[in-house]
Amino acid sequence: MTTVPALEATSADSGFRRTTIERRPVGPQDVAIEIQYAGICHSDIHTARNEWGGTHYPVTPGHEIVGRVSAVGEAVTGFAPGDTVGVGCFVDSCGRCEYCADGQEQFCIEGVTATYNTPQADGTPTRGGYSGAVVVDERFVLRVPEALDPAKAAPLLCAGITTYAPFKRWGVGPGRRVAVLGMGGLGHVAVKIAAAMGAEVTVLSQSLSKQEDGLAFGAVDYFATKDDETFARNKGRFDLILNTVSADLPIERYLSLLRINGVLCSVGLPTEPYSVRPGALIAPQRVLTGSMVGGLPEHQEMLDFCAEHGVESEIELIGADDVDAAYDRVVASDVRYRFVIDVAGTLA
Amino acid sequence: MTTVPALEATSADSGFRRTTIERRPVGPQDVAIEIQYAGICHSDIHTARNEWGGTHYPVTPGHEIVGRVSAVGEAVTGFAPGDTVGVGCFVDSCGRCEYCADGQEQFCIEGVTATYNTPQADGTPTRGGYSGAVVVDERFVLRVPEALDPAKAAPLLCAGITTYAPFKRWGVGPGRRVAVLGMGGLGHVAVKIAAAMGAEVTVLSQSLSKQEDGLAFGAVDYFATKDDETFARNKGRFDLILNTVSADLPIERYLSLLRINGVLCSVGLPTEPYSVRPGALIAPQRVLTGSMVGGLPEHQEMLDFCAEHGVESEIELIGADDVDAAYDRVVASDVRYRFVIDVAGTLA
Repeated sequence: MTTVPALEATSADSGFRRTTIERRPVGPQDVAIEIQYAGICHSDIHTARNEWGGTHYPVTPGHEIVGRVSAVGEAVTGFAPGDTVGVGCFVDSCGRCEYCADGQEQFCIEGVTATYNTPQADGTPTRGGYSGAVVVDERFVLRVPEALDPAKAAPLLCAGITTYAPFKRWGVGPGRRVAVLGMGGLGHVAVKIAAAMGAEVTVLSQSLSKQEDGLAFGAVDYFATKDDETFARNKGRFDLILNTVSADLPIERYLSLLRINGVLCSVGLPTEPYSVRPGALIAPQRVLTGSMVGGLPEHQEMLDFCAEHGVESEIELIGADDVDAAYDRVVASDVRYRFVIDVAGTLA
Repeated sequence: MTTVPALEATSADSGFRRTTIERRPVGPQDVAIEIQYAGICHSDIHTARNEWGGTHYPVTPGHEIVGRVSAVGEAVTGFAPGDTVGVGCFVDSCGRCEYCADGQEQFCIEGVTATYNTPQADGTPTRGGYSGAVVVDERFVLRVPEALDPAKAAPLLCAGITTYAPFKRWGVGPGRRVAVLGMGGLGHVAVKIAAAMGAEVTVLSQSLSKQEDGLAFGAVDYFATKDDETFARNKGRFDLILNTVSADLPIERYLSLLRINGVLCSVGLPTEPYSVRPGALIAPQRVLTGSMVGGLPEHQEMLDFCAEHGVESEIELIGADDVDAAYDRVVASDVRYRFVIDVAGTLA
């Protein structure tokens, strides 16, 4: 076991404090990683504050991790000390079920092990990236291409894959009209990825306050959803709407923006049921669906794609003692566009 | 103009009477067809009885038409007198918009002309297959392969394409688990087609009364939806559920029967909005969608597929004076599985 510095929250309203946690010995299949950067995902906040229920305290969030390999187990073939690597939302799965065999570990029949807050065999929950180091089975370690800035690559491990995977599934590419609903941590990366894929990208955001950024990230149009005219003007326009907003929305209003065979795919989880007239789906053959992160092979594909196309997250780098303040700013939508903790510089 | 015998309803509760109607002269692109058989679709009943509103009386339904070519226009290249041909739900479209160009005439931007009840330039509605003959632009005429019994092929022009198209769209084939919800006119053809495509087919019907038929048509399993055990037993089983039922259903209960990435596709149109918790769609990446008939090239592909695989509708052949009684039996679900009017033998 190795003792490493970490942040932890001890209750829903405790905020974070510095502590130390134990990391397991490096097993044959394991990669030990000195964490450099950890992105702050809105899921971290929901979990730390127990807004979804089920938080196991003390909790150390963080599933947008980039670091350097410090040691590898004897059976590890894909990584060597000194490599820059990433870890995303998952750190283990059964490896045998049909979904694992198909590279869709997020759907592992025995249940995927999340990077934090999943109870392990000894009863303690996994601890995430707000810590100095982590030991992870090499199946769940990603290569971070040199072309990517490690700090700006960290958010790709969740925000990147969560938006890349549905774009691939639903055929985003040249000639396709994609709307990204929401211009936050996920949305801004989604705009960059969809534009890099060659699609015609439109941002649908509550207001026009981030319009200049959206166009700079590759969108050709930017509309405010608080403006009724947006819905009249874009009726029947899009092949795909990627909904990155977790708030409850009048979903049928957004369906009306889809073409025949168009797809509305949500990656945020609202609380109220959707109410949809069947006619809004059936005759125009529209699809209402969702997407959850992605499989490990697709994570690597996404990182390689982002490196090739220069897609990185826009970040504000913060210190380990700034996390509570950063959480409040995320909740207030006051970040452009992702906070990343300088773990190596401020937590070690 | 040619005068031909026909049936017509003059009001929502009139029932049918014999009459004569005019068919247009055969234009350069036209095919004149002596109708032999016309299937009775539930849509005919909704329209004749004005249950959807918007019926233009007098109405002559019928969009599952098989007959023989009696004459062709000078520019017609695909058909000759004596050919056995079919006409489905549509008889015209603009022919120029992106959907027409793509062989998806049902979504024609200027509006597709339905085989009956669509007002024409002179204000009179189109008249359908419950008539002795029809004149149709050759773009909307299908070849009925010799291997198909013409009477049993007639229902394929609506029930066949309506179920074939979503099966193709959603990748039905070997190794895929398909549930057909409802064992009526559409459902029984759907079972045959999905089985012919090589899928593992399960029928979900209100009761087990048609179980023997379902298994004979190619299903491997048959469950009653009134039995709660059906839902526990088949949880997470299907890649695709084709919902042929127009009644309001607890849609989330059916979503629970889908695997990861599974699709629930409706081809009937219920009246009440769907209520779906986002979690039932998003994390398991399930798809809620619908399908509307199909394009003309796909109609021909479907007929050729059915000929190759011996897929025909199960029918009860009736006379022209039996339509009112047949309608009542369809509404009572008392038909196995499609009424077809012997037009040539009883209406001419």
